[in-house]
Amino acid sequence: MKVSIIGATGYAGAELVKILLKHPMVEVEKVTSKSFAGEKISNIYPSLVTKLVCEPLNIDKITSPFVFTALPHGTSMEIVAKLYQMGKKVVDLSADFRLKDVRIYEKWYKVPHKEKKLLSEAVYGLPELYREKIKKAQLIANPGCYPTSAILALAPLAKNKLINESVIVDAKSGVSGAGRGLTLQTHFPEANENISAYKVEGHRHLPEIEQEISKLAKREVKVTFVPHLIPVNRGILSTCYTRIKQSLTTSDIIQLYQDFYKKEPFIEVLPEGKFPKTKEVFNSNRCRIGLTVNNLTNQVIIISAIDNLGKGASWQAVQNMNLMCGFKEGIGLNG
Amino acid sequence: MKVSIIGATGYAGAELVKILLKHPMVEVEKVTSKSFAGEKISNIYPSLVTKLVCEPLNIDKITSPFVFTALPHGTSMEIVAKLYQMGKKVVDLSADFRLKDVRIYEKWYKVPHKEKKLLSEAVYGLPELYREKIKKAQLIANPGCYPTSAILALAPLAKNKLINESVIVDAKSGVSGAGRGLTLQTHFPEANENISAYKVEGHRHLPEIEQEISKLAKREVKVTFVPHLIPVNRGILSTCYTRIKQSLTTSDIIQLYQDFYKKEPFIEVLPEGKFPKTKEVFNSNRCRIGLTVNNLTNQVIIISAIDNLGKGASWQAVQNMNLMCGFKEGIGLNG
Amino acid sequence: MKVSIIGATGYAGAELVKILLKHPMVEVEKVTSKSFAGEKISNIYPSLVTKLVCEPLNIDKITSPFVFTALPHGTSMEIVAKLYQMGKKVVDLSADFRLKDVRIYEKWYKVPHKEKKLLSEAVYGLPELYREKIKKAQLIANPGCYPTSAILALAPLAKNKLINESVIVDAKSGVSGAGRGLTLQTHFPEANENISAYKVEGHRHLPEIEQEISKLAKREVKVTFVPHLIPVNRGILSTCYTRIKQSLTTSDIIQLYQDFYKKEPFIEVLPEGKFPKTKEVFNSNRCRIGLTVNNLTNQVIIISAIDNLGKGASWQAVQNMNLMCGFKEGIGLNG
Amino acid sequence: MKVSIIGATGYAGAELVKILLKHPMVEVEKVTSKSFAGEKISNIYPSLVTKLVCEPLNIDKITSPFVFTALPHGTSMEIVAKLYQMGKKVVDLSADFRLKDVRIYEKWYKVPHKEKKLLSEAVYGLPELYREKIKKAQLIANPGCYPTSAILALAPLAKNKLINESVIVDAKSGVSGAGRGLTLQTHFPEANENISAYKVEGHRHLPEIEQEISKLAKREVKVTFVPHLIPVNRGILSTCYTRIKQSLTTSDIIQLYQDFYKKEPFIEVLPEGKFPKTKEVFNSNRCRIGLTVNNLTNQVIIISAIDNLGKGASWQAVQNMNLMCGFKEGIGLNG
Repeated sequence: MKVSIIGATGYAGAELVKILLKHPMVEVEKVTSKSFAGEKISNIYPSLVTKLVCEPLNIDKITSPFVFTALPHGTSMEIVAKLYQMGKKVVDLSADFRLKDVRIYEKWYKVPHKEKKLLSEAVYGLPELYREKIKKAQLIANPGCYPTSAILALAPLAKNKLINESVIVDAKSGVSGAGRGLTLQTHFPEANENISAYKVEGHRHLPEIEQEISKLAKREVKVTFVPHLIPVNRGILSTCYTRIKQSLTTSDIIQLYQDFYKKEPFIEVLPEGKFPKTKEVFNSNRCRIGLTVNNLTNQVIIISAIDNLGKGASWQAVQNMNLMCGFKEGIGLNG
Repeated sequence: MKVSIIGATGYAGAELVKILLKHPMVEVEKVTSKSFAGEKISNIYPSLVTKLVCEPLNIDKITSPFVFTALPHGTSMEIVAKLYQMGKKVVDLSADFRLKDVRIYEKWYKVPHKEKKLLSEAVYGLPELYREKIKKAQLIANPGCYPTSAILALAPLAKNKLINESVIVDAKSGVSGAGRGLTLQTHFPEANENISAYKVEGHRHLPEIEQEISKLAKREVKVTFVPHLIPVNRGILSTCYTRIKQSLTTSDIIQLYQDFYKKEPFIEVLPEGKFPKTKEVFNSNRCRIGLTVNNLTNQVIIISAIDNLGKGASWQAVQNMNLMCGFKEGIGLNG
Repeated sequence: MKVSIIGATGYAGAELVKILLKHPMVEVEKVTSKSFAGEKISNIYPSLVTKLVCEPLNIDKITSPFVFTALPHGTSMEIVAKLYQMGKKVVDLSADFRLKDVRIYEKWYKVPHKEKKLLSEAVYGLPELYREKIKKAQLIANPGCYPTSAILALAPLAKNKLINESVIVDAKSGVSGAGRGLTLQTHFPEANENISAYKVEGHRHLPEIEQEISKLAKREVKVTFVPHLIPVNRGILSTCYTRIKQSLTTSDIIQLYQDFYKKEPFIEVLPEGKFPKTKEVFNSNRCRIGLTVNNLTNQVIIISAIDNLGKGASWQAVQNMNLMCGFKEGIGLNG
Repeated sequence: MKVSIIGATGYAGAELVKILLKHPMVEVEKVTSKSFAGEKISNIYPSLVTKLVCEPLNIDKITSPFVFTALPHGTSMEIVAKLYQMGKKVVDLSADFRLKDVRIYEKWYKVPHKEKKLLSEAVYGLPELYREKIKKAQLIANPGCYPTSAILALAPLAKNKLINESVIVDAKSGVSGAGRGLTLQTHFPEANENISAYKVEGHRHLPEIEQEISKLAKREVKVTFVPHLIPVNRGILSTCYTRIKQSLTTSDIIQLYQDFYKKEPFIEVLPEGKFPKTKEVFNSNRCRIGLTVNNLTNQVIIISAIDNLGKGASWQAVQNMNLMCGFKEGIGLNG
């Protein structure tokens, strides 16, 4: 199958190229880039061994039946809509089709949504929650990196209606999560040897987490979400705190998580006393989860580790493609 | 004034040497080290410009009236007791005299406490809480690095009886906090490009935080404390979460913090919308605090940044010395 | 084909496991480890998704026809000799069979060589120099990481008898090159934010570089080699300096390099004005080379970049296996 | 004495502010910044505890008798000239007055030199070579970071006419050396976990090194200089290679270096077998030098370590000020 990648020179786009070049079922037909049109992608990312040349975006020339869009939010929606109308299958890595409530989208992203009708078509691309829908979908809204880590950490509790109150997600992310655009915050001498929180008063990934956790819990769950910038290239560790309703032991809750994720090829629930590290999931589609409960207070701590460019973005996008195309779910994703 | 440093070749000990060599009121008389007796300390730490030679510990030969002890917990208590009996003023950087309840000490540190009588003499060396007591003390239990960051972040809330329920402290520390002893976890290729939580089920600094916050709040406050290892050399960022009883705005709470720390030379409460980074307090005795409250949920987020070897250990130890000796509080500590 | 890995829990051994688990032509039958016998290798390296359990080494029980040995020098030789006698094909990642002159081996490695007879059987496993011999070999001495980077950088000059005088190799390596053993030098707070040279008066990889460059040049070439420790996990950048005999332009020499490496799948000679970075060859078997000559002085600067665990160790070992077994040379190595 | 800093918000300027705020003999009167005029410098660099507000540059309003200029090359010369005419003492951290031959300046910096007359007034601010001239100077051209490290490493050999041929300087620098301006090369995810050479075909600091080494050697010495970017914030390690004329032992040359630097407060020549690390000179004005000679080839390796913002820029600038003003040379510089 031929695939195209629109916006191939950002970090998520280049990661897509990296995985898809090795994917046994697909051939990368076209890569587009606004900033680097005409340049070999191997000049921009010499780690990519390919002769592909970046082209300017010309939607009409896209002949492949499958397209990944890795564009900034706001820019993506109209392009996705056209591709959709052309009958392409699309995995959109932007935020444009993730939030079901258009008012929430417009509030957080501060742009009008021009393709509201498509919102109901788009399936939120977290296979652990929506596998069957993804298989049939034409358009996938690929989840954000933080939401992926938080939702996977909290889903079994939410689904089992064990969440008592608000949830706290204290997330630590590597710097590639901030993208390839230059900022003082990500200038090496500023980011290196530094630990900081950012967007403490509200990060755009918050409504996405709340939407999915509330849906699972079948009631509105409020989330407190604080992202932190950590001087590593890749990886997200999310430490989640909540209080559960019933008195369950650590071992009970681990059992519950293991049941929930029993058939999941990319989720590992660790045994009692073990907690994940981001290095363990580097350059992979895996998510590792460890947890403990304090029996005096019913406070649960759940820690999940993903690679923000792996399960948090491009690898998950390919997992979605595999499902949408009837390929083996894990093909091309075993690291 | 002459001072001696017992245990001068760990990170906290060497940091003490560094500061005290430049301190205008003191002269470092003696530095002791078990592992490096006979060696110039400048051979072990070439960044230290001094002719001081490490000596084996011989308490009777210590003639300086002021002594810092930077020894492992369990080892420190008896040495401190002898120094105390000899009439020395002592700042002890170990955990041996921090916990007022000897059962809690023995539970967490798994060694019997052999100097229980001294516990009531020892003053917890956090000048922002105990300045007047410190001035008169002969023995200071210098606080742990995590407790310093957490207590300073939470004290104004606790003191004003605003804490509603349990408190969560999600702390991120640089690797020097784990000391100079070799472990796989702190081996460069393991720690670098990695983010992880550790001691999730219970870290020894937890009871120290609970002791002080409960004391301020005049009731037992339960703390959930998760430390994280971050690939930087120095710095602690503590992100603290709690719910307050009353409906107060961010601006109200900032005002309350600014009042609480009004006269504090080393604490900065940031204006609304600003949050600290560890780089800002690197190599200093400063603590910077930023906070916000969500008015819908009364959830408060307070973030504090310190240098774990600065306000979190050796610099605070010198601040305590300054107070105990009637020096200007900030002398030798302005960076 | 079944393969076994002896010494699977060091960094080179674990990297072998990682690659071989995905290699389409082989199955990993056995992994051995002295320190971790009985443990799942996925417990030691959770990034490895496999059920393989480390076994203690029992040579007689090794039934696979192909074996990788990733043991410390000195320890490796006798085990390799036994495997050789059993008729196994072996790629030895230690230094034990790399140096053809046993006196030089014993001088630098300070252990007696107990398997001298095998030295003449062992082929130095640099495919770019010895491809045909490797194809027929039963025993490969897999090159050291520094020698791989230096020899690949200098071979075309040496082969064309252009080297005028001594050669300088200023090499910069990531910390994984020092192995998984704990040392103060590789303790995170010491290695991080530090740049240093080591073994300036003589590193064991020097004679290996001199042996191969001299052989190519058909005369004794003296090499000055200074390795440096750089706070990254992986990668070697070698900056090589020599003066050439004739007056050739940068473009002439690049042409000469491109001719020399014309058919090499893993070597890239960069165009004029371009120089490699280690990130470009991370997690791969590639070597990228850039060079320039100063026409006034005939001084040539050649810079090569490899991944020390890639082309510098385990990936090259698999390239050797591919050649020895008649597989496609690059199979399992495309990243 | 009052001092002003023109261009106070780049890394060198901010480092000057940091040191001068603690310098017992001076008071910082004015700090100027084009980009941040009107802002408190403590907002831009919260590690600086001061109420100073950045002003736009208005030369006529500068009333302090001493001025540091930390501006980009090309921009600096005319401002320095005006300050000079106003009778101010000036330490200029730009390259504008370092090169005595205006053609070489114009060739490398690609701007016309508009203040040629001042070139003969400007003293090259390396106290180890020009201390007496510096004491009497009104204008100092503060050396570049790489030249400082290379010249200090090579001066004793050059002065003793021992350099036989060309010299190679393989220098490794932390990222702050590239300044605060945003570039892709210094974007965290690009610079981190990467090792690279840059400006291999010619870096602007080369002519400065050649000028000073040739002057010392009293003949034209050609230098091959390759700078490398290393993922640390601060520090330069220069590994220098040359062949000496006579047959001298390592011990002889160390003696020669120790004699040359006998009275130097900031230079340390290490004993045989010891080599410096950048961490040892972090945040200081020190330069540490280690060396060895290969007696078969007369090849000498000299390694120097400095902090690029310390002895390589701002701390050396203050050392120059101390000399120009008759202060104790090391005052305010002991770390």
